Amino acid sequence: MVEDQEITNFASDNAAPVCPEIIEALRIENTGPAMGYGNDDTTREMEEQLSTLFECDLRAFPVATGTAANVLGLSVMTPPYGSIYCHKMAHIEGDECGAPEFFTGGAKLALLDGPDGKLSAEILEDALAKSGAGNVHHIQPAAISLAQVTECGTIYSPSEIASISAVAKKYKLGLQMDGARFANSIAALNCSPAEITWKAGVDLLSFGATKNGAMAAEAVVFFNMEKAAEFEFRRKRGAHLFSKSRYLSAQINAYLEDGLWLKMAGQANNMAARMARGLSDLVAAPLHYKVEANIIFATLPKNVIEALEAAGFLFYVMGSKDEGHVRLVTSWNTTEEEVDRFLDVLLKHQ
Amino acid sequence: MVEDQEITNFASDNAAPVCPEIIEALRIENTGPAMGYGNDDTTREMEEQLSTLFECDLRAFPVATGTAANVLGLSVMTPPYGSIYCHKMAHIEGDECGAPEFFTGGAKLALLDGPDGKLSAEILEDALAKSGAGNVHHIQPAAISLAQVTECGTIYSPSEIASISAVAKKYKLGLQMDGARFANSIAALNCSPAEITWKAGVDLLSFGATKNGAMAAEAVVFFNMEKAAEFEFRRKRGAHLFSKSRYLSAQINAYLEDGLWLKMAGQANNMAARMARGLSDLVAAPLHYKVEANIIFATLPKNVIEALEAAGFLFYVMGSKDEGHVRLVTSWNTTEEEVDRFLDVLLKHQ
Amino acid sequence: MVEDQEITNFASDNAAPVCPEIIEALRIENTGPAMGYGNDDTTREMEEQLSTLFECDLRAFPVATGTAANVLGLSVMTPPYGSIYCHKMAHIEGDECGAPEFFTGGAKLALLDGPDGKLSAEILEDALAKSGAGNVHHIQPAAISLAQVTECGTIYSPSEIASISAVAKKYKLGLQMDGARFANSIAALNCSPAEITWKAGVDLLSFGATKNGAMAAEAVVFFNMEKAAEFEFRRKRGAHLFSKSRYLSAQINAYLEDGLWLKMAGQANNMAARMARGLSDLVAAPLHYKVEANIIFATLPKNVIEALEAAGFLFYVMGSKDEGHVRLVTSWNTTEEEVDRFLDVLLKHQ
Amino acid sequence: MVEDQEITNFASDNAAPVCPEIIEALRIENTGPAMGYGNDDTTREMEEQLSTLFECDLRAFPVATGTAANVLGLSVMTPPYGSIYCHKMAHIEGDECGAPEFFTGGAKLALLDGPDGKLSAEILEDALAKSGAGNVHHIQPAAISLAQVTECGTIYSPSEIASISAVAKKYKLGLQMDGARFANSIAALNCSPAEITWKAGVDLLSFGATKNGAMAAEAVVFFNMEKAAEFEFRRKRGAHLFSKSRYLSAQINAYLEDGLWLKMAGQANNMAARMARGLSDLVAAPLHYKVEANIIFATLPKNVIEALEAAGFLFYVMGSKDEGHVRLVTSWNTTEEEVDRFLDVLLKHQ
Repeated sequence: MVEDQEITNFASDNAAPVCPEIIEALRIENTGPAMGYGNDDTTREMEEQLSTLFECDLRAFPVATGTAANVLGLSVMTPPYGSIYCHKMAHIEGDECGAPEFFTGGAKLALLDGPDGKLSAEILEDALAKSGAGNVHHIQPAAISLAQVTECGTIYSPSEIASISAVAKKYKLGLQMDGARFANSIAALNCSPAEITWKAGVDLLSFGATKNGAMAAEAVVFFNMEKAAEFEFRRKRGAHLFSKSRYLSAQINAYLEDGLWLKMAGQANNMAARMARGLSDLVAAPLHYKVEANIIFATLPKNVIEALEAAGFLFYVMGSKDEGHVRLVTSWNTTEEEVDRFLDVLLKHQ
Repeated sequence: MVEDQEITNFASDNAAPVCPEIIEALRIENTGPAMGYGNDDTTREMEEQLSTLFECDLRAFPVATGTAANVLGLSVMTPPYGSIYCHKMAHIEGDECGAPEFFTGGAKLALLDGPDGKLSAEILEDALAKSGAGNVHHIQPAAISLAQVTECGTIYSPSEIASISAVAKKYKLGLQMDGARFANSIAALNCSPAEITWKAGVDLLSFGATKNGAMAAEAVVFFNMEKAAEFEFRRKRGAHLFSKSRYLSAQINAYLEDGLWLKMAGQANNMAARMARGLSDLVAAPLHYKVEANIIFATLPKNVIEALEAAGFLFYVMGSKDEGHVRLVTSWNTTEEEVDRFLDVLLKHQ
Repeated sequence: MVEDQEITNFASDNAAPVCPEIIEALRIENTGPAMGYGNDDTTREMEEQLSTLFECDLRAFPVATGTAANVLGLSVMTPPYGSIYCHKMAHIEGDECGAPEFFTGGAKLALLDGPDGKLSAEILEDALAKSGAGNVHHIQPAAISLAQVTECGTIYSPSEIASISAVAKKYKLGLQMDGARFANSIAALNCSPAEITWKAGVDLLSFGATKNGAMAAEAVVFFNMEKAAEFEFRRKRGAHLFSKSRYLSAQINAYLEDGLWLKMAGQANNMAARMARGLSDLVAAPLHYKVEANIIFATLPKNVIEALEAAGFLFYVMGSKDEGHVRLVTSWNTTEEEVDRFLDVLLKHQ
Repeated sequence: MVEDQEITNFASDNAAPVCPEIIEALRIENTGPAMGYGNDDTTREMEEQLSTLFECDLRAFPVATGTAANVLGLSVMTPPYGSIYCHKMAHIEGDECGAPEFFTGGAKLALLDGPDGKLSAEILEDALAKSGAGNVHHIQPAAISLAQVTECGTIYSPSEIASISAVAKKYKLGLQMDGARFANSIAALNCSPAEITWKAGVDLLSFGATKNGAMAAEAVVFFNMEKAAEFEFRRKRGAHLFSKSRYLSAQINAYLEDGLWLKMAGQANNMAARMARGLSDLVAAPLHYKVEANIIFATLPKNVIEALEAAGFLFYVMGSKDEGHVRLVTSWNTTEEEVDRFLDVLLKHQ
């Protein structure tokens, strides 16, 4: 790491600080007593705000990590002898140290491939047709998990989700959406939150805020409310029910107020687009996927990677520097100046 | 609930707000990027501060709930075919919805009785002598869990812990301390944190802050560092590793600064003592246990309970109002005025 | 152990050999191929025979151990955040090394006391009234497990079961019967298998054969068939689905043929009764419980215990020989001669 | 299915009956009492026989199913946050309904591809080099599981095992062998049981007998005895400790006596070789893998498949009959006449 100069962190959107509005909301929340464990007005307000946002009745529960949101949600959809169909690059597969297996009591992730980090109705139909459903020797298909935004930085359209949902319904599977970067998808798509979720057949959403400016807050949103009661027991035994829940809910309330969440996600997306344009137009660096949200995968020459690091930029190099595959993530607080400074280094060293 | 008048909440110390120093610390922490998942300077500082406080090498990991601290800690001590010896009134038994069983993969809690909510060396020796250790039909003793402060509001002395630890060593069991109210015990005892923990034989401590003025922060402290590496995997798969961990650590750092934690716990203890004196001296209400920390169990006439509720006091009634068993918990922000107003209502209605 | 003389084993009914009819049935079954995993005619016949015996539609699945029958059955009744109400002396609590916790994914056993090793409607009602059902902090009542015969050798009457079942229904709990010694109860009671099970409200029965002359065979019998499909997946993932299932089913079929099961259980019961009469009448040894089946708990002088051991009798001494508490279990092949020889030694040494 | 004619079952070796010697051994075992749960002479003899066979000290535990042998074994090698590297066609992946995940408490199977259903040192090295060992976000490599014979009917040589074992040692992984058809491998290889197991670096073996003429008996063999004590607790809580264990052990003892196990496996292998020769020489049916043991994968025309079924042959068709992929398994009791009759039908209909 570089001393004596500013670090610009493109390693992850969770390296960014909390947005000031949310810090301020915590201060404001901090007056007087409130009953613990979610029996408080701030949490009730959070559920109402999400209900308004999604234009439907729903149940919403705050938790503090994206992994908790995903795996607690999946655990009410999947028996221990069940399987969850997901992309082989999914966060639940590679980056949660077995949390889905733990919370489901031993379910399997059935890994599928698909271009751009996305599943499709066809890919799922193919896999499910030979899944051995009903055969006692085989683990039983129970759920489909989609990431919106995907791990590749791509985005599902409402019609893609709807066709996947049709397969889910055909095979009686739950449809869960890992929305750790849900805000970035809404900021990018020309659609309402309802259109990309329950109207397209999503049963359960991890509505992420942490990666987009919150401190530690996600809401698990049940559009299909049948399993919400079970969720509460599973959240408690997972040690994810906060005694002072109001400080989780206060983050989400501030996040939603006056469209703050979309403003922040829009800024991250715009900065990624600016960087992507620079990479392809200015320096002809190959992009691995269409840049639709705030994540860029590209290939850079080794000397450029080293120059960027020397200039104080942090980001992931996947594999060796000789291969040169890098991941760049912009955040709610990424500035044009930071992106341009990054591109300047590139231009100078290409 | 009562409208149009101030509520004074003696239901739980987790109903209190966050102390302003900790809110301010979150604001101060909130500058610039930091690597996620605990690879940050604030978290390193937290471990160092605890090391100084406990006068020894240790490993410390922040989590957000007391249940998480307890059950993740116990999970590295207890195989799935193991048992954890604890008091039958322990929080891990009655108030965590099976979290210990979940995180250990199916271990049992072996419930023991003992006066004042406390275990003793004798009680443990008795139980362990007939535990069936080594017999394949029986679950195997693996750990002892003590709550300091206990669920009854009583406190173990260093010599009590040391004699229990001798039994733990004899039977090769881990010794875990549920310190959700650890601060209240140190504020009450005339001893150092080291004396009541590792010097007395404790292997693992849940160092609580949430109930004593933090927002959501506990540190799992390993005095016996052998299992610390395993803990990190278990924390992640339990979905308890925060991406923005620095905001957990910042709470603990502020909590420890300038003895804030003991000041707050001292205030809560003093207010409980003041209330207990009032209950016994002024109104002759029977106290169930010696009041050593910030929790009071007492019996009150039904009409007094109702008068207190009408006057805006919140607290738990265990069972029916006719029986009149109540629990009163004071907090870091409980004031003399609040206690005296409570006692005034009592005096008026007895 | 004693060499050069015949051992008479009163330690357990599972120390007895297999009855010759069942050994012969295995030989007869052993012709030609059969599809594996229970898709065979012998298994279908087993289900039909049990359906006839219990005078109702049912689903029945063979497994090889009593523990498997119990815990697989309970696992379809109990969510991982659930609790199973049972007697504190229950086999599932003390003698299965945590198997119920394992198969349910972490459920708790809620231990109740009651005279003669039996639960009653009152004891259950009391416990369930304060169980915290619906409260997210508490594990949720899910099932009641009764042992018929109990661990004390006592037997529930149909009306006792029926009143317990009424409590189960009131609290929406499943009612499971651990029938490891079910045959001994039917041989003792003046009732049909139906009367003591589904007609009295039992949902699920572990129909034991191993302790009463089989090699390794129990049937899990679903009177409430809703959960039978789930059971099949759980049996397979528990590694309890036999490829050559027909040899399990053949044991049960032979066991049921011509009332063999009741003949064997009757013999064991009669021998226990003979021994109990001898203990109380001849030598005035105190019996701990009414001897209703094939198990006797009694207190004997130390010198008598030693004389019996020297004479080649095997049995359990609970605790120390000075206390003198012994358990004696008779089997399908226990003879009058063996019992009388045992009593002779007693008479000689009292 | 075909009535009124003999069925010849090539569907699985577990469709065959038990060999008469083992049935007779059960009858002979059936005299007098014996202490339960493996504390019997027959079980001690079983361990000694295996020790002699493998020319080393070892611990051996009988269980009744191959799945139990595999998953109980793997559960002592793999923490719940661990992964087991195996071939994507492995039985533990596709045919045990999630049993490995259940018994390990949520570990993952890391699926690898490799020609002929086999892993190689190179394939494992590649995968392990990028496994994320030590990284808290990733599940941790813990064990390698090899099937000997593989699901494709192929066999590892001692040197192949040894080079895989070197990788296991380099990465500190346990090496388990699923020997459901271990006898078929020894009958085919020109080596001793020791050479293909512990001398080549195998820590733990599922020594199968059920598929090769036993009723229901496998031995879990620990060459590395460190984890054997833990195994006993896990077996009991998995409900796989038989009260009348001697009848499991008696099967294995008879199986080993006078080389019966190799005689039976040799017959199965020879019949597969005869069938394979017929398939390639007589009818030019493409074989999918080299036929090294008792399993054949081949492609047959649809009309031939239908003619074989009509003639009373049972076997698996993988996918549709148009594709024509079939699996044929010979058994200890398969005869030349049966194979020749099968080939006759083929010749007639090609």
